[in-house]
Amino acid sequence: MLTYYNHLHSDHEGKVEMFRGALVPCFEVPARVDRVLAELKKRKLGTVLPPNPFDDSALLGVHSQRYLDFLRGAWDDWVALDPANAKRDALPSVWPVRTLRSDVLPDNFAARMGLFSMDAGSPLTDGTWDAARAGADCALSAALAVAGGKRAAFALTRPPGHHAGADFFGGYCFLNNAALAAQALREQGLERVAILDIDYHHGNGTQAIFYERADVFYTSIHGDPSTEFPFYLGYADELGAGAGLGFNRNWPLPRGSGFEVWHATLQQALQGIAEFDAQALVVSLGLDTFVGDPIAGFTLQTRDFLQVGADLARAGLPTVFVFEGGYAVADVGVNAVNVLQGFDQQAVVNKESA
Amino acid sequence: MLTYYNHLHSDHEGKVEMFRGALVPCFEVPARVDRVLAELKKRKLGTVLPPNPFDDSALLGVHSQRYLDFLRGAWDDWVALDPANAKRDALPSVWPVRTLRSDVLPDNFAARMGLFSMDAGSPLTDGTWDAARAGADCALSAALAVAGGKRAAFALTRPPGHHAGADFFGGYCFLNNAALAAQALREQGLERVAILDIDYHHGNGTQAIFYERADVFYTSIHGDPSTEFPFYLGYADELGAGAGLGFNRNWPLPRGSGFEVWHATLQQALQGIAEFDAQALVVSLGLDTFVGDPIAGFTLQTRDFLQVGADLARAGLPTVFVFEGGYAVADVGVNAVNVLQGFDQQAVVNKESA
Ligand SMILES: [Zn+2]
Ligand SMILES: [Zn+2]
Repeated sequence: MLTYYNHLHSDHEGKVEMFRGALVPCFEVPARVDRVLAELKKRKLGTVLPPNPFDDSALLGVHSQRYLDFLRGAWDDWVALDPANAKRDALPSVWPVRTLRSDVLPDNFAARMGLFSMDAGSPLTDGTWDAARAGADCALSAALAVAGGKRAAFALTRPPGHHAGADFFGGYCFLNNAALAAQALREQGLERVAILDIDYHHGNGTQAIFYERADVFYTSIHGDPSTEFPFYLGYADELGAGAGLGFNRNWPLPRGSGFEVWHATLQQALQGIAEFDAQALVVSLGLDTFVGDPIAGFTLQTRDFLQVGADLARAGLPTVFVFEGGYAVADVGVNAVNVLQGFDQQAVVNKESA
Repeated sequence: MLTYYNHLHSDHEGKVEMFRGALVPCFEVPARVDRVLAELKKRKLGTVLPPNPFDDSALLGVHSQRYLDFLRGAWDDWVALDPANAKRDALPSVWPVRTLRSDVLPDNFAARMGLFSMDAGSPLTDGTWDAARAGADCALSAALAVAGGKRAAFALTRPPGHHAGADFFGGYCFLNNAALAAQALREQGLERVAILDIDYHHGNGTQAIFYERADVFYTSIHGDPSTEFPFYLGYADELGAGAGLGFNRNWPLPRGSGFEVWHATLQQALQGIAEFDAQALVVSLGLDTFVGDPIAGFTLQTRDFLQVGADLARAGLPTVFVFEGGYAVADVGVNAVNVLQGFDQQAVVNKESA
């Protein structure tokens, strides 16, 4: 598995997040990616490369200019308010919900933090832009490798991306790596790209970015948003809109669901991708479906992830894997690499039987 | 000045609020109202009564049923999650901004907190509902007194109200007392009601509640929202919509503005109310325009508030005063009662010269 590793990921290291009315230590930590990298190397699962650099304009197919401008300058703006801020994360505290305007860009920094975010759980730090930006390069590099003929590639990066919208951060996500990969595949000439999101949490950002488009099919298996983050999107009645009607498909499952029901649902999601006649696949690879995850509620076992990888390979599509969630740090490396190894092994079988 | 005093206001006492990325002690404290009450009694400025009780249905002209249902049960829901929550305030941490849905009511409590709020600065406590509910009774009692022939009445209550929308809390506000008073005046048969908001902060909730109505004219003098809370509403180009076009008028002033410019702007706002031919006036009486306010930026002096009261009396309208912000606790009593006394003194002059 060709892997593009975000060598700047640890530049982003949040201190605290709002969780149930209190500030608590962040769940989304650098060790998550370190564990995956170590496991990849241990199993010698292919080449690990740094990302190729892309111009910021490569992000504009997914994110708005004013959001990128904000994100690039946010840390400096925060520290300019008060030099003591250099020692604390920036968190938003007010949001433009119903009846409040999003069209005006306020001067006030807290107001801009709120304008461009959806939660108080995603601290913005000194290195957030550099880490997220290099992560986008990983996703774009993986997409170009696959567009160029590679069977599959893996963007190993954090912060994750699938909750980030066109113009907001949230759910630990700043730039939507999976959306960037899908958009890059489209721009490389693949006409129909499917995104399969198997993170425990619905990828609200990814869904919203492509919701009115027929060329990118988004489908997700996730904890029922009525009880699970991100709460306000990911329901089964969201089928796309406008030209995109019919090109969005959600599979919410109750908290507590195990591999049997999850696996049966995966077959249905893959069936939808086959019916869409996708020419390439982007997998939002979250490992927080694992039974031991501290902020999720499915019960997948470590061995199940090998099976998941094999199933994905059987779809037979050029595939970009993008690392998303998974907060059981001690297990996330083995679980992630099980998916990739399961994929590689099945891909060999596919090829030999072709 | 007939005063309806919220005898339950101190049931609402938040511990911490999110402010610039950290949890800090609340600015909106019970002593604010205690000071005003003490000053009213000291100056013997008329009768102080408890509110008359109104049925919850009296709130439905302003707030949605599902919001009221949420707010009434929120504390019990919070404590049911974890008995230890009884000792901490509830604060939201995720919000349905752009592309996220507000039409689905999630089961998750944190999700419902976010669905029905606009910031992380408004802690919900054990007594929030009782205090806000009795405050609404104060506003309704004052409105009915004025509709019944009283020259003026004062709703002395907290938490304040003008940031609360039809279906969200925020900015320390839960039920919109000024909107409830205006709506009650309308239901008592007054055809055109004006709301003048002189709190330092724009009353986004009040504006939004009446934005498409021609029967309630909302006008506000406040700190420029580009730099001041609530940031996402209160700009000069907001003139109303639909049937309400032309019945909303904002007067944002730069942070640092003093009484000279503020007072000239007040004359323009009162001119708008005269042109509207209002039959009654509701004043959102915030005292955070005071130079000593810790979270605001105008420079009004204590003596200026006597002048403000006199100006309001010269409008010659039956007037409901509703207590809103003002966080310079040691001065808020004198400043608030200066407005009321200035009003009463001028009202006598008006009457004698009539
Ligand atoms: Zn997740
Ligand atoms: Zn205020």
